[in-house]
Amino acid sequence: MNEIAANVLKEDPRAIARLITFTENGDFEASNAMKDIHRFTGNAHVIGVTGVMGGGKSTLICEIAREFRKKGKKVGIIAIDPTSPFSGGALLGDRVRMMELAMDKGVFIRSMGTRGMLGGLASAVYDVVEILDASGKDIILIETVGVGQAEVDIIKIADTTLVVLVPGLGDSVQTIKAGLMEIADIFIINKADRPGVNQTVAEVESLVDIECSNEDRRTPVLKTIAKEVNGIKELVQEIETHKKYLKNCKKFDIKRKKRYEAELVEIIRKRLMNFIFDESKFKDKVELLIDQIYKKEIDPYSAADKILGKILK
Amino acid sequence: MNEIAANVLKEDPRAIARLITFTENGDFEASNAMKDIHRFTGNAHVIGVTGVMGGGKSTLICEIAREFRKKGKKVGIIAIDPTSPFSGGALLGDRVRMMELAMDKGVFIRSMGTRGMLGGLASAVYDVVEILDASGKDIILIETVGVGQAEVDIIKIADTTLVVLVPGLGDSVQTIKAGLMEIADIFIINKADRPGVNQTVAEVESLVDIECSNEDRRTPVLKTIAKEVNGIKELVQEIETHKKYLKNCKKFDIKRKKRYEAELVEIIRKRLMNFIFDESKFKDKVELLIDQIYKKEIDPYSAADKILGKILK
Repeated sequence: MNEIAANVLKEDPRAIARLITFTENGDFEASNAMKDIHRFTGNAHVIGVTGVMGGGKSTLICEIAREFRKKGKKVGIIAIDPTSPFSGGALLGDRVRMMELAMDKGVFIRSMGTRGMLGGLASAVYDVVEILDASGKDIILIETVGVGQAEVDIIKIADTTLVVLVPGLGDSVQTIKAGLMEIADIFIINKADRPGVNQTVAEVESLVDIECSNEDRRTPVLKTIAKEVNGIKELVQEIETHKKYLKNCKKFDIKRKKRYEAELVEIIRKRLMNFIFDESKFKDKVELLIDQIYKKEIDPYSAADKILGKILK
Repeated sequence: MNEIAANVLKEDPRAIARLITFTENGDFEASNAMKDIHRFTGNAHVIGVTGVMGGGKSTLICEIAREFRKKGKKVGIIAIDPTSPFSGGALLGDRVRMMELAMDKGVFIRSMGTRGMLGGLASAVYDVVEILDASGKDIILIETVGVGQAEVDIIKIADTTLVVLVPGLGDSVQTIKAGLMEIADIFIINKADRPGVNQTVAEVESLVDIECSNEDRRTPVLKTIAKEVNGIKELVQEIETHKKYLKNCKKFDIKRKKRYEAELVEIIRKRLMNFIFDESKFKDKVELLIDQIYKKEIDPYSAADKILGKILK
């Protein structure tokens, strides 16, 4: 077995961090290690956390992690939100909270950028989930930004998706209707000490009524005040109940297969793109074609045909 | 020449709409038409509009479009934001505004979903830009959601990128620092009748001071009240000034080549992914591999190797 893979399985945090960096950089070494660890994965419960900006997702994730730690579970945290306090923008109160968490040996925190990748959710996220899973984490929490492609992708990775809202929705109701509704396994109205909380709960509940009328499970709507550790126990209980539900109705297997499919798509996409756009034997050819497209000597579709003709059997 | 392509060149709105739908569906007919129209493109000024949710982007786009219409320019509008009023969620005031615009023969409006695509900004956007360009639109306005991958991608398409903010930033300052700063060609503080506008302008100006200290152009920060058509003339003037700037310093060519590169990447990605995951001769094989990954009989990286080995020369 690959040495770094062996050390990941021994839960060595330095090996975990290194393998993640290797996968982010598309290092060749990484794929060997990834091949070795796959058969030790599949135990972690992957929880996606998304929702409106300023909803307090990071604080909530901290408190969920702490609650799971009390139950003796090991926790991994992945922040894909560039504006997340985990990514460096923490206010003082949050920073203390996160420092405490980061000191805990049963917790591994990693923040990832979304920039510079050729489309899609930070493609290395699939790898990071596998690495944390193999390293014995029971719970993996993934934080993503509020709106856009990322949420659509998170549902492919997460077993359970939490959607975080705050009182006084306004624009957010549009957002929910436009996509968050379908992906939410649990709704959380955080900052529930703010005015208007009951109206917001009622609004979300009525959306849930419409959406879940034909489902065998009704999406719960919970109130939390993460900063005061209020409602967190109940939330963690709901998360565990959701996992049991998935296991009982076999949806767990379906979700996992969807994740592996998305992961396979992503690996193949990355390989092919690197093959075409990074390998030196194609690079000059591609640059020449782009120049020709610009000069209208060829169109982009015919240029693509030419490149594909060179690489496909 | 392909018939639908010929009709697009004649500015027939029905042909434009049909060709867009064909490209969205990945119809084979589409690529023939796309090949035909490319040499008639390159004239449109492509303007990306992004920024915080609730910033009034759609209203602003309406007013920018109207101002360009007064100057006799033909305008295309592409809304990629699923929460955009262009996509159906308009409040009454906005709806009247947009209806008026939609009735104007010199305007073509198209809203596009971001869901269901295998990563990246709605991949068909490149095609839609080419189609609108070929159909004689002088100005193409693209609206995207506020945070995430979409903004990073928009810079590859747009010649000029507008970042829309509102007074009382709070969280938004984080957002700007986290990525919007680099992509903004013009900052707009919309809803400038709200309290705190001067402070917000000052905050953004000081960020611009830091960012642009080594640049030959300082990113302008403009105030608008789009609902009252306030500041729009000045904004459109700045947009035109930016285009002249790009032309003068040759950055226009560089931006265009980057767009064609991104477009080429996207066409190739789409072709390859369809080839592997949609063509029936691979579909069964892929499904079998996903099942094996799930059962830990194979890992995702080795599965990817197997598929790539079958298709690559």
